[in-house]
Amino acid sequence: MSPVLALSGGVGGAKLALGLSKVLEPEALTVVANTADDFEHLGLPISPDLDTLMYTLAGINNTEQGWGLEGESWGAMTMLADYGADTWFQLGDRDLATHLVRRQLLAQGRNLTEVTAQLCRQLGVTHRILPMSNDAVSNRVYTNKGELAFQQYFVRERCEPEITGFGFAGIESASAQPDFMQLLQSPELNAVIICPSNPFVSVQPILELAGVNKALAKNQAPVIAVSPIVAGQAIKGPTAKMMRELDMPCDVLSIARYYRGLIDGLVIDKADAEQASAIEALGIAVDVASTVMRSLEDRIGLATSVLSFAEQFKRG
Amino acid sequence: MSPVLALSGGVGGAKLALGLSKVLEPEALTVVANTADDFEHLGLPISPDLDTLMYTLAGINNTEQGWGLEGESWGAMTMLADYGADTWFQLGDRDLATHLVRRQLLAQGRNLTEVTAQLCRQLGVTHRILPMSNDAVSNRVYTNKGELAFQQYFVRERCEPEITGFGFAGIESASAQPDFMQLLQSPELNAVIICPSNPFVSVQPILELAGVNKALAKNQAPVIAVSPIVAGQAIKGPTAKMMRELDMPCDVLSIARYYRGLIDGLVIDKADAEQASAIEALGIAVDVASTVMRSLEDRIGLATSVLSFAEQFKRG
Repeated sequence: MSPVLALSGGVGGAKLALGLSKVLEPEALTVVANTADDFEHLGLPISPDLDTLMYTLAGINNTEQGWGLEGESWGAMTMLADYGADTWFQLGDRDLATHLVRRQLLAQGRNLTEVTAQLCRQLGVTHRILPMSNDAVSNRVYTNKGELAFQQYFVRERCEPEITGFGFAGIESASAQPDFMQLLQSPELNAVIICPSNPFVSVQPILELAGVNKALAKNQAPVIAVSPIVAGQAIKGPTAKMMRELDMPCDVLSIARYYRGLIDGLVIDKADAEQASAIEALGIAVDVASTVMRSLEDRIGLATSVLSFAEQFKRG
Repeated sequence: MSPVLALSGGVGGAKLALGLSKVLEPEALTVVANTADDFEHLGLPISPDLDTLMYTLAGINNTEQGWGLEGESWGAMTMLADYGADTWFQLGDRDLATHLVRRQLLAQGRNLTEVTAQLCRQLGVTHRILPMSNDAVSNRVYTNKGELAFQQYFVRERCEPEITGFGFAGIESASAQPDFMQLLQSPELNAVIICPSNPFVSVQPILELAGVNKALAKNQAPVIAVSPIVAGQAIKGPTAKMMRELDMPCDVLSIARYYRGLIDGLVIDKADAEQASAIEALGIAVDVASTVMRSLEDRIGLATSVLSFAEQFKRG
């Protein structure tokens, strides 16, 4: 079975990744996670997007809360507050176990790919989740309140500062994860799907790793993005706010322009169907689908629709 | 107010330390904790005796369970089990916070004394708790199953292997904590109280630190031990079992012989009153008291009794 490659950030991307994992065999899907949001907190290595993908594909994510683990407790956090420690980044007790194990394995000399594979195996995740790189890359958010690390901007400052731009510290010296790069260079690759994640801070770091853009352009496999913007809103996270602050109209046409030259097709929601022709005028094919994923059926439905859209490019 | 110095291990010693803290002002009591049971687990620095003393004096210890914190939860432990990580040493979620903060502070270059002081301050402990040393010392237990680290023997192997002897790795190069040593050398020192802790693995490491025995002998302050053995049994832990395996009769007379040359007086329980004269024949004064501490009143009662016993030596 020819493999599909999905590029994903956290919650929004993980929804589609879960849908893809329900319709593709383990050997037919590789999910590459953004790791530019990774950071160290309380001495522990936190990989928010890897963890969200892992928990989601393991079926143990907290669907009510929208992030973290189901059945989570907060005993450590309460006690950390008593100690006057940083509590702006919420680490649940069960989640802490992930970071403790990750730290131990990294301290033993394993790389992030090996660590992720072991955690996934223990949690019963059968589809492959890869970090975009084994090297450290760190999202920097330039704002009217100065330069912030991503989690400082996202969690501590609740996305309130006004964005002026982005940087990815360490990106020049980071290598794309080798299996990811090999897949990008494989003639067997069936499709590349850019999940509905934040284009600026979740997808862009993956694309900026040396060789990724070039390999994407060279590969015959279609590159399909799913718009993270629906009817002028982001389903989740600060994408829409960032677009406004960057003076980009907050619509699917802006998403198409952002990914122009990279993608062959864009999947947009029915609510945005009237922009289809403007996007097609950019030389990007459009598929109109239901992109708001509330239920597991929605996730599977969108995954099926995206895969069938990708199939058309091979016939064409 | 002339200071009292208490030497303590974990649970049993902490009961008396709590009693002492209820009758002595903060500036009149220093509790020195054994740190030879300290070890690293899941990458975190665990100080069992320091933590037990700290939690007990903060009034947040789990009195039902007999160890750990009140209101503890086990989310991280459950998840660690899912990851196949070591779970033989139970780390509660709230307890984990202590070790995370300790690790961070140590990583910032603070020593164990400073770290302990900060943790105590945050938890509202006003009496001084000192580690016996800022340097690493590690209890080694020699058994019929080979040499074991203390927590392996105590928790993982549930004290089942038969003891043949003890060692304290690192003791030669470890320095006694400076404030502890200064107090030992002070003419102001009022009394030294050896809490009812395990003589072999909790008290002995403190005594074996370079200079401690000598300073104890030189200081005019009386040294009073409270027997950890009552009616041939240890209230808590493996003391009685160890004594049998070391071919020592499991009674208070053996405790007196063990501390002979070091202590001026031994506090024994009423149940052991008939051994008083045999102990006195060794040149050790005896006080008969209720040493089984079930309630807070018991702890305060024993503390008061021990302090008044110590007073007699100054009058004598």
